[in-house]
Amino acid sequence: MSFIEKLNNIWSENDSLLCVGLDPDMSRLPVSLRDTPDAIFEFNKAIIDSTHDLVCAYKPQIAYFSAESAEDQLEKTIHYIKTKYPNIPIILDSKRGDIGSTAEKYASEAFERYQADAVTINPYLGFDSVEPFINYKDKGTILLCRTSNTGAKDLQDLSVDGMPLYQKVASLVSEQWNYNNNCLLVVGATWPSQMSQVRSLVGDMPFLVPGVGAQGGDIESLVKAGKTKNGTGLIISSSRAVIYASTGDDFAIKAREVASQLRNEINSYR
Amino acid sequence: MSFIEKLNNIWSENDSLLCVGLDPDMSRLPVSLRDTPDAIFEFNKAIIDSTHDLVCAYKPQIAYFSAESAEDQLEKTIHYIKTKYPNIPIILDSKRGDIGSTAEKYASEAFERYQADAVTINPYLGFDSVEPFINYKDKGTILLCRTSNTGAKDLQDLSVDGMPLYQKVASLVSEQWNYNNNCLLVVGATWPSQMSQVRSLVGDMPFLVPGVGAQGGDIESLVKAGKTKNGTGLIISSSRAVIYASTGDDFAIKAREVASQLRNEINSYR
Repeated sequence: MSFIEKLNNIWSENDSLLCVGLDPDMSRLPVSLRDTPDAIFEFNKAIIDSTHDLVCAYKPQIAYFSAESAEDQLEKTIHYIKTKYPNIPIILDSKRGDIGSTAEKYASEAFERYQADAVTINPYLGFDSVEPFINYKDKGTILLCRTSNTGAKDLQDLSVDGMPLYQKVASLVSEQWNYNNNCLLVVGATWPSQMSQVRSLVGDMPFLVPGVGAQGGDIESLVKAGKTKNGTGLIISSSRAVIYASTGDDFAIKAREVASQLRNEINSYR
Repeated sequence: MSFIEKLNNIWSENDSLLCVGLDPDMSRLPVSLRDTPDAIFEFNKAIIDSTHDLVCAYKPQIAYFSAESAEDQLEKTIHYIKTKYPNIPIILDSKRGDIGSTAEKYASEAFERYQADAVTINPYLGFDSVEPFINYKDKGTILLCRTSNTGAKDLQDLSVDGMPLYQKVASLVSEQWNYNNNCLLVVGATWPSQMSQVRSLVGDMPFLVPGVGAQGGDIESLVKAGKTKNGTGLIISSSRAVIYASTGDDFAIKAREVASQLRNEINSYR
């Protein structure tokens, strides 16, 4: 089953547009977990078991694993989801981008090694840097368009051909790069007006929306700005607000509470 | 010693602007090596021992290690260079780019885990995605400006404020982001006219120049377009043309021959 099919199914099955981001920072794990072997995996496993019926995707952020030399625990995390909850799509958040021959290796990293269903990609190097990902027809290629951070304006808002660069990227992806119908865009929750402009350019192409929770994106505004006609089209990602809802041994219970609140709040505006 | 100091010293000591890129593709290693344990490290070690007096830097491309689950061999490769040839700077080619909190983890990956002297970074997410790297004052932050691939034109050549985006990036880096004097730019060897325009914008800021060899960049044109007044300012990287000069057991000897020719040809135009 393709990533897009999986996504459509889970939106409906779990009645959720919420994605939980797995950003396991060792210094923020519960003290009782930190010294256990595979602490990162055990933390993720508890979060996943506690939230699997509330989400439309999990999004492990590879930097948190790489900084800790914990690639093996990323593999175990993904393998755990695919085995126990095979209906939930996994987005590897790695924002790779390189020339063609190297991009093939990054595609192999994401889809062969880690077996992710989709991956985030930086478009700055242009089409031939993206093509090796798109050519995995059943996988999702999620291109950075308008990111959630304050520095996003430095390049992404610059005016090209009478429109901001991020809209140019949206048009390029929608009109030229999406020939396998497997492209998505990253549009930050912190910019609802930009999101509605991108939505008007790309039809029903799904958005990955980071920036809810710790980054302060407003849920009502972003859902209204970004949803498609059938009330989907969004993968709204929250990481820190969910996984660090408590720093104690009740972290998984509290993560479920926050995830449930977020899902319900999102659904109230669909 | 800072990356920039190391670079200035080695340009002079080895009389070389040549950087050898370590892109160890398992399918292209000599057959006799492929089944040995740590084949990637052994391949790199032979290339390094054979070329260390001819280069101004080594540039391991992390995708080739990640696709093979060989992060440990990347660590060993860098440790080997730092121990045996501590005067040679190491550039981790990873082209990372993410929001601030994640960028800190990527900076940790590059500088704490791998102990690289410099790292390549994608500027699309703007200043706060770059700042955690720049704040390592003694390390080099090498920002993508005009890359060597054909797709570079898709975004990088778009006109913003009357100049192509890649020149806007060059100006941003030169005028605003280089407050620690540790920024460099990636400018592909395949575009000498663009390189001379960037040189005119950024003074003596060093360029990392990929695209010589397999990608076909012309050495005379690029050296004349990119060199600074004292005949340096360039880290001219060749990967496949050097490390795969022979597919047989003489690969290290042939790599030395090609590296020596490249160094001499570069020097003839300085």
